[in-house]
Amino acid sequence: MSVENIQIGLLGLGTVGRGVYRIITGNAENIKRKVGVGLEIKKIMVRDTSRQRGIEIDPGKLTNKVEDILNDPEIKIVVEVMGGIEPTLDYVSRALENGKSVVTANKDMIAVYGKQLFAMAEANNADLLFEASVAGGIPIIRPLKQCLSANRITQIIGIINGTTNYMLTKMTEEGSDFADVLREAQAKGYAEADPTSDIEGYDAARKLAILASIAFNSRIVLDDVYVEGITKITAEDIAYAGELNYIVKLLGIAKETGDGVEVRVHPTLIPRDHPLASVNDVYNAIFVTGDAVGDTMFYGRGAGEMPTASAVVADVMDAARDLLRNVPGLISCTCYEEKPVKDMGSTESKYYVRLDVTDRPGVLASIAYAFGDKEVSLASVLQKQTDGNKAEIVLVTHRVHEKNMQEALEIIKHLSSVNAVANIIRVEGD
Amino acid sequence: MSVENIQIGLLGLGTVGRGVYRIITGNAENIKRKVGVGLEIKKIMVRDTSRQRGIEIDPGKLTNKVEDILNDPEIKIVVEVMGGIEPTLDYVSRALENGKSVVTANKDMIAVYGKQLFAMAEANNADLLFEASVAGGIPIIRPLKQCLSANRITQIIGIINGTTNYMLTKMTEEGSDFADVLREAQAKGYAEADPTSDIEGYDAARKLAILASIAFNSRIVLDDVYVEGITKITAEDIAYAGELNYIVKLLGIAKETGDGVEVRVHPTLIPRDHPLASVNDVYNAIFVTGDAVGDTMFYGRGAGEMPTASAVVADVMDAARDLLRNVPGLISCTCYEEKPVKDMGSTESKYYVRLDVTDRPGVLASIAYAFGDKEVSLASVLQKQTDGNKAEIVLVTHRVHEKNMQEALEIIKHLSSVNAVANIIRVEGD
Repeated sequence: MSVENIQIGLLGLGTVGRGVYRIITGNAENIKRKVGVGLEIKKIMVRDTSRQRGIEIDPGKLTNKVEDILNDPEIKIVVEVMGGIEPTLDYVSRALENGKSVVTANKDMIAVYGKQLFAMAEANNADLLFEASVAGGIPIIRPLKQCLSANRITQIIGIINGTTNYMLTKMTEEGSDFADVLREAQAKGYAEADPTSDIEGYDAARKLAILASIAFNSRIVLDDVYVEGITKITAEDIAYAGELNYIVKLLGIAKETGDGVEVRVHPTLIPRDHPLASVNDVYNAIFVTGDAVGDTMFYGRGAGEMPTASAVVADVMDAARDLLRNVPGLISCTCYEEKPVKDMGSTESKYYVRLDVTDRPGVLASIAYAFGDKEVSLASVLQKQTDGNKAEIVLVTHRVHEKNMQEALEIIKHLSSVNAVANIIRVEGD
Repeated sequence: MSVENIQIGLLGLGTVGRGVYRIITGNAENIKRKVGVGLEIKKIMVRDTSRQRGIEIDPGKLTNKVEDILNDPEIKIVVEVMGGIEPTLDYVSRALENGKSVVTANKDMIAVYGKQLFAMAEANNADLLFEASVAGGIPIIRPLKQCLSANRITQIIGIINGTTNYMLTKMTEEGSDFADVLREAQAKGYAEADPTSDIEGYDAARKLAILASIAFNSRIVLDDVYVEGITKITAEDIAYAGELNYIVKLLGIAKETGDGVEVRVHPTLIPRDHPLASVNDVYNAIFVTGDAVGDTMFYGRGAGEMPTASAVVADVMDAARDLLRNVPGLISCTCYEEKPVKDMGSTESKYYVRLDVTDRPGVLASIAYAFGDKEVSLASVLQKQTDGNKAEIVLVTHRVHEKNMQEALEIIKHLSSVNAVANIIRVEGD
């Protein structure tokens, strides 16, 4: 292929779309020298072509007809930054069927429909690149697919949602409550008006499904991921964790265990000296362990206009390079295995447990007995008087089966001196 | 190109060579599925073919004649893990001239002879890949060349020497002296019998030259890098830094300033809450700032048999993929600019200065006057009685020109109440 410029169609001109436009136009000369050919945004599909967008764009480039992009044979690369599944999935499918390479930032789509899209890309000899779909500007998809490809990846532990990391950082630094911090995050624009997807862990789960698929060479979809959000984390839990030298983070955890893979998103205690423990505010980080490389970590901004656009444009540059050398799909889907996903009952973990109890002789003994009976052994125990004859018992277990833990808790919560199992949080990384 | 297996020649079978052999043979099935073709080590050049190496290798693969690799048309990829310049540079040049792709872990060679080697690779339509030459297993070369390629990189700050990071971590944690920690590092095999290259900063300087060349798209060679080692860092400096909330690290710093690039390796105070401050022991980390992506960091093991081999084999897999699709050199040298390198006098920094003084009235005033006269303004000052009428004054400046700083110190060291300028360390990252 030999052309003056490679023509690009942009689906969407929201936050990330504007960033993509800014980089491709503002950094044009460098991009051309790195790729060997210039990139030109020929058409941009938006819902309303007359809307003001705070960015100067030739109105002739704007269209509200997706066909102007999908059916234009000059457009070789389609950049999808409109998000969502409907009608995006249809647009992306048609672009691939028309032999166009696609770059997308859409984790929702890839985490659920990845398999069919990669098959389409392969059948049509096109690139389907999605670095921006996980952890914004942080290079992680390509490092996993290429730089660490000589390894058998054994685990990935990631802080992959900026909103909840900001909230947990504030709760840790200021001792504030969940509800107050959520309001503050919403006021600052770090959390959405409907924060469900972030605080309930679904956003992280989508990203984890994508990462685990690449790391383990086996398709993991959103439904495979166990998900628990941060809404039950209290200022007390964070304070107790601190006393025990732990930090509370919402982690995406994927492990290959030999008899299947574990994929789960939940609040987690990690040791204060773990590299992930000092990843604060809206920053993301992905901690990857490989059998040869050992522990590695990738850190940076997981969202935002320019960081996300940085990843999108890098993918566009790769797609352009592949087109120029006529090798689209150079590195395609790597899910060549079918590994079973373990159910949570058969996973193993350490646990932090906080119990509200009535402070009378024998209470700790009856709790300890119930744990012991289910083969849950305890690593540390704190007991604190709270109010009158009430007390809180906080304990951390050794590594146990989730199933045993749940059975022990079922007995404990019915003990006469136990008023409530106030919280249970998994412990990782030590 | 369509073949059963891609044949590889290995130059050297030391620590990294053994790791490469272990991964390519032990992970053969996965590699084949990821690349699309198997990799086979056909010949290994060693000095002494009869020596025991603690690894089982078909003796028929061993040779002491480099021609058995360089002149074998079946060998498509040459992996250079013998190190050094002589005769390595000659071997690698001949491999490239014979149209073979080359993967190397050799920072010494790339940092000095990179330009001519990349030109050779390009002329002969071959890949020259070198991920393992910087920071062992940590993906950083490809992330800079591809994943962050939409950015204008503004700075790189790296902990890129494991030996010195181990030593400084020990000095910080245990308050021990440089000489004691060096002996301990040598006993543990973390420092070599002749530790010069590590402790004087030359090893880090080579890696920084490579990183800066890629980041700034302009060839930087070893001679361009200002180098200062850690031999003058004392337990006192580390303790004072701690009091001021700083950690002492040996950093490689590369900045694009608009009027040229700065490339320097020296001990540095960084704030305790900087992501690099908690990178301890033999771990490496590279902190990269781009105009779009913002701050990112790449963390992991910077040396060792398997981490380094992880990077080498990933490069071999990429070279194999390129051969299979007939696009070697897909991403070649990106040094298309010629940016001037600034001399140290015109760089700017904050400084930590420790002075041994005679404790008498007016001593601080005369020092402060000398700094002020050269436009060096002070951010903080500590004064401590040491012994009798002796005192130490420790101060941190605001951002100043190196030249002004040196002129001020020239005056200060001749003040009658100043016994010695005990140490000067640059401050970065806040």
